[in-house]
Amino acid sequence: MLAMCFDGRAVLSPDYPKPRCTHGDVLIEVSKAGICSTDLEIVKGYMGFRGVMGHEFVGKAVGGSRLWKNKRVVGEINCVCRKCDMCKSGLANHCRNRTVLGIDGRDGCFAEYVALPGRNCHEVPDSISDSEAVFIEPLAAAFQIIRQVKLTKSDRVVVLGDGRLAQLIVRVLRLCLRRTVMVGRHQAKLEAAEKQGVQAVFEDDFVAGKDADVVVDATGSPSGFELAMRAVRPRGTIVLKSTFATAGGMNLAPLVIDEITVVGSRCGPFPEAIAALARGDVDISALISAEFALQDGLAALDAARRPENIKVLLDVRR
Amino acid sequence: MLAMCFDGRAVLSPDYPKPRCTHGDVLIEVSKAGICSTDLEIVKGYMGFRGVMGHEFVGKAVGGSRLWKNKRVVGEINCVCRKCDMCKSGLANHCRNRTVLGIDGRDGCFAEYVALPGRNCHEVPDSISDSEAVFIEPLAAAFQIIRQVKLTKSDRVVVLGDGRLAQLIVRVLRLCLRRTVMVGRHQAKLEAAEKQGVQAVFEDDFVAGKDADVVVDATGSPSGFELAMRAVRPRGTIVLKSTFATAGGMNLAPLVIDEITVVGSRCGPFPEAIAALARGDVDISALISAEFALQDGLAALDAARRPENIKVLLDVRR
Repeated sequence: MLAMCFDGRAVLSPDYPKPRCTHGDVLIEVSKAGICSTDLEIVKGYMGFRGVMGHEFVGKAVGGSRLWKNKRVVGEINCVCRKCDMCKSGLANHCRNRTVLGIDGRDGCFAEYVALPGRNCHEVPDSISDSEAVFIEPLAAAFQIIRQVKLTKSDRVVVLGDGRLAQLIVRVLRLCLRRTVMVGRHQAKLEAAEKQGVQAVFEDDFVAGKDADVVVDATGSPSGFELAMRAVRPRGTIVLKSTFATAGGMNLAPLVIDEITVVGSRCGPFPEAIAALARGDVDISALISAEFALQDGLAALDAARRPENIKVLLDVRR
Repeated sequence: MLAMCFDGRAVLSPDYPKPRCTHGDVLIEVSKAGICSTDLEIVKGYMGFRGVMGHEFVGKAVGGSRLWKNKRVVGEINCVCRKCDMCKSGLANHCRNRTVLGIDGRDGCFAEYVALPGRNCHEVPDSISDSEAVFIEPLAAAFQIIRQVKLTKSDRVVVLGDGRLAQLIVRVLRLCLRRTVMVGRHQAKLEAAEKQGVQAVFEDDFVAGKDADVVVDATGSPSGFELAMRAVRPRGTIVLKSTFATAGGMNLAPLVIDEITVVGSRCGPFPEAIAALARGDVDISALISAEFALQDGLAALDAARRPENIKVLLDVRR
């Protein structure tokens, strides 16, 4: 099968072996897939990953477990052991022995076929299009924020970043807040959020006044975290949504002086994301910047890197 | 009066002006004072402080507000406006307009006299000696941890660091946990904790296995925070108790991947610290390494810097 792999560099493999299903697995014919910032990090060497890239997809169950036969599905990315202390304490996403689709020890979905355990699969209702369904995985990650941090309608919440994930985060927060602020650097991206009722502010115009109850850092950069420490009020919360390493020195004293809480946040609940899309609560129409055939996957990666683009999709059946 | 000041370097001022009391202030004749790591940071330029150093003390009220006349008192270090949003929301320790005793905009207690608002003062019961009373301020900071993080008796909690504050933290945690682990680098300090029923481990022998429910970082160093990220379990909590800046790069990705919560923690509740000392719940006898007269204050600072010493006191009346 055709697959886009990382083996030290991103390559298209025309004859990659079709995935084999073990007991309980579902073989899925991929329809569409989405490129995430993590995929771009993988190409830089993140996680030391090797194999088929990609973890955001929608497809049709065509083999393996019969329960899923012919259903249109999306899949949770953490494949877990159900035996370790994390799994047994209800934190399966943190399974000690997990593999992660296209990220850690398991071939991903930038391919004609992908295999996943049936318990990772969720059926997609007809009211959600294939292009929308690709957003279920990152949208679930956005919903994770309101699971981890209890918000009230009047809370002052600021989202730093205007990229792929930040766009989904403001769309989720808007559902439970009177006012959501996004701070970004790109006119078109800020406008896309503004059309959703979000107050969008250019970073240069943003005054960090230690007055936000919650700041979500979705910038993926050390400067974003430093801005978050200046924007959040004493005893407030910073939700850290993207991974980064400090390059030079960073003063973390404000965390102690202002008794700030930092909450790391990763994968989230698929059912909530599916329900929100099915109900039309979350509108992702403005977020798709381009769509490429899988055979043009390398060009798609290039497009996903360009700051003017938000989401780039792969149409695998094209 | 005699005072130890910082004016770009630590100096003894034999004729420093005695503090003036404004309405509601108490004039306190200092009996004993304690040297804290923050004082050593002040001498390095922390907070850009100028004036009389010191914030841990016990003394006798001798002037100002009559309510306190002749009482033996300790004092909370944050002097607040009672008008700003933080004060009005019950977070007065984070007052936007605060001065902080010997740390920020207010002369401290390494002097014959110190002035503090009456509402900052707490009377010290007779069962607590002067030397013990000096520990009330940092002990309150240790109690702040169990206010911020709800612990259950069986939680696996690891304290990183064996210095002044870490010693008080393990003594507080021991009150509510079945088992408390301290990880340090100094035999004598680890032994001091061990005598309190704490499990003390040399850092070189400590295996960070991502299995602690809570890790308290009281090392004041970037390497301590990195060790904390390796020691805490997924979805666990790191309590950050000492300020530091990262020197080179630091990878903060584990916070997101393992969805770790970091809780910055600073000053704490004096009544709980006073009650614990009065009841004899916390034994600080082994923590006093040396005591100097105020006129030997510079030698006292040197002694406080030495890694083999825990707490160095100033006997101001000597």
